[in-house]
Amino acid sequence: MTDDHHGWPYDHLFARPVQESMGGAEYGAWRAIANADAAALSFGFPFPDSFPRDELLAATEAVLEEEGAKALQYGGSESADRLVEWTTDHARERGMDATEDEILLTNGGSHGLDLVCRAFLDPGDRIVVEGPTFMGALRQFDKFDVAVESIPLDDDGLDVDALEGRLEALEDEDEDPPKLLYTIPNFQNPTGVTLTRDRRERLLDLAAEHDFMIVEDDAYGDLRYDGEPVAPLRALDEERPEGGRVIHLGTFSKLIAPGVRAGWAVADETVRDQLRRLNSGGSNTTFMRSVLGKYVDDGTLDATIPELCQAYEQRRDRMLDALEEHMPPAAEWSEPDGGFFVWLELPEQIDADDILDDAIDEGATYLPGRWFYGDDRGANCMRLSYSYEELDEMEHGIEGLSRAIREAI
Amino acid sequence: MTDDHHGWPYDHLFARPVQESMGGAEYGAWRAIANADAAALSFGFPFPDSFPRDELLAATEAVLEEEGAKALQYGGSESADRLVEWTTDHARERGMDATEDEILLTNGGSHGLDLVCRAFLDPGDRIVVEGPTFMGALRQFDKFDVAVESIPLDDDGLDVDALEGRLEALEDEDEDPPKLLYTIPNFQNPTGVTLTRDRRERLLDLAAEHDFMIVEDDAYGDLRYDGEPVAPLRALDEERPEGGRVIHLGTFSKLIAPGVRAGWAVADETVRDQLRRLNSGGSNTTFMRSVLGKYVDDGTLDATIPELCQAYEQRRDRMLDALEEHMPPAAEWSEPDGGFFVWLELPEQIDADDILDDAIDEGATYLPGRWFYGDDRGANCMRLSYSYEELDEMEHGIEGLSRAIREAI
Repeated sequence: MTDDHHGWPYDHLFARPVQESMGGAEYGAWRAIANADAAALSFGFPFPDSFPRDELLAATEAVLEEEGAKALQYGGSESADRLVEWTTDHARERGMDATEDEILLTNGGSHGLDLVCRAFLDPGDRIVVEGPTFMGALRQFDKFDVAVESIPLDDDGLDVDALEGRLEALEDEDEDPPKLLYTIPNFQNPTGVTLTRDRRERLLDLAAEHDFMIVEDDAYGDLRYDGEPVAPLRALDEERPEGGRVIHLGTFSKLIAPGVRAGWAVADETVRDQLRRLNSGGSNTTFMRSVLGKYVDDGTLDATIPELCQAYEQRRDRMLDALEEHMPPAAEWSEPDGGFFVWLELPEQIDADDILDDAIDEGATYLPGRWFYGDDRGANCMRLSYSYEELDEMEHGIEGLSRAIREAI
Repeated sequence: MTDDHHGWPYDHLFARPVQESMGGAEYGAWRAIANADAAALSFGFPFPDSFPRDELLAATEAVLEEEGAKALQYGGSESADRLVEWTTDHARERGMDATEDEILLTNGGSHGLDLVCRAFLDPGDRIVVEGPTFMGALRQFDKFDVAVESIPLDDDGLDVDALEGRLEALEDEDEDPPKLLYTIPNFQNPTGVTLTRDRRERLLDLAAEHDFMIVEDDAYGDLRYDGEPVAPLRALDEERPEGGRVIHLGTFSKLIAPGVRAGWAVADETVRDQLRRLNSGGSNTTFMRSVLGKYVDDGTLDATIPELCQAYEQRRDRMLDALEEHMPPAAEWSEPDGGFFVWLELPEQIDADDILDDAIDEGATYLPGRWFYGDDRGANCMRLSYSYEELDEMEHGIEGLSRAIREAI
């Protein structure tokens, strides 16, 4: 319960999961970080020049001219079908045996995750996440009044031995297994690590053995600029006779722009149908989908992805170089092959929340590691994002952050 | 349970409300109606010429030029704030004492209703609706595994005496009261009737006495072209010391276009905050909201509403004239002061489902009355929409429909 009801006396009417979670986590320093006059190494925003402004305007014009009223009506126009086709083709290029019946367009990755939670989670259910994991996902789970357990990860991604141990312990204690496991297998948010092929196979073994679903959040999978691609969990799962346990989530937020709020889910048709039914609240952004369908249909997006990879690679290199040059020897960091993030680990006695103000004074923001656990773990860690800030600013930011850390050591 | 799982063997993992409802209602004749080569008197679509195509393109161009990357980034640009301001002003013009803290932008009216359901409904809860009511709302409720009871309405809207009787019976039987009551007080979908001021006050009395929330779906409230406006339930509720029980839902679907998927909720701040938190799945369509904010900010929309009312009045008049001219004496229909719909009642022995094919052959589609109950009531009724079809086509359609009805009598 919360004391934030401004005289509204009917909290007892809220659904039970709402009552259980309405006083939930707030991120105290959020506003300070967002408003800081410092290099923005905090949020996972794509860099502004990556947005195809002219192309989106041209696509809007073309849709209105060619499909006019139909694009603005309930149901939408045929251009929106092009977006489904692109998404299906794209899933197939990534190794999935996808058909259009297995695709659901969403309003972005988090919306897809929300739908999956609605489809599978009852109050009291158990879910498993990586520790640390995407704070936005933790906030989603918070709404469902479920027990969230985190399993550590290392340079090879989720520690499947630790997961197996936990699953066996639950079985021994006659406790229910998790309903679902949430993983970001490629260039994980916040650590940047990638789940190896072997571990993916073992994770699928465990899902079959302990009867749970896997949510594969692949927000960054297209942005690999080093090393060899690893097959999506959904692709590996499809090859198994006992498959069908993986729901793959994609997003256009990093490929086009977050503001268009568009993404997709790839799932077995039965699951896709239920996700779609849960989304029948009319929140399908039909007109925007027509515009995006028009945009992707001429191949522009496919041509853009390698350019995006090149730009993010340059950003990652600049950040890793700056860390190498400026950080004290006691700091360690991940070296991602793609995506947006580096995870920085400091000596145990350093608390990343405590030095945030100093870091901002020295010219850099970041997100404290605790935010990615939802408890006190990760206190000596921070997530650094190289996706957004201008290159020179980024380097100055790392320099300033290094000063703040040296002060604290 | 459904047999539609194409070999997907994990239905047991779905959340309980999903398992309970996954074999839920389908509307059999939907496709036949949608594809019919006949006057479209079925769906509640705005007429295509009402869409401000040029203005939306101009707003898109202006947003991209003036706010560029910010409008496409997470969080969105300041133009989206203009949409909140317009909505707040609009609520105040409608008699509500609204502040921006009481406004939540939604992806349309149904999305707002979905959020309200998530905020208040646990499996097994009871809700009350008008009988008949919007079929899309019935489909929403179906997802939540709740008991839906319908209370009849007449020319003055919801029969509050019948409601009171039912609430007292529940109390006598020591049964829980409903969690919420869903009403469309203005130009109700599907009947076109409007809830009187007196009944609104009595409904609020009953909500206080029996401790339930009211969802006021005001999708058509701005489209009044006859008679005097009645104060929104939310406005009347605000004047009461024991108020705070009404959530008012609005939509831009009828004022701008359905494809933009935008609407709003007006609710006490505590409720607004929980609706917003439940919607934190990133489904806020930030870029589209910036475009709409730009569009509404120069007063174009306010100037357009009277024009829309005039156009819909002309459509209603044409339909009522055609009904008067062509229908057999045994048919009766409502005479709405606004909105999109006429409710047609035929002799008891006529089944509107049975004569649909004949009506299509004679040149008209409609929606059978059963669809608005979710059971076998309303079999001898149909909803006619005058919002979409061209005027001459509409008249021909009514003429053909009258032939089909005369045949069946």
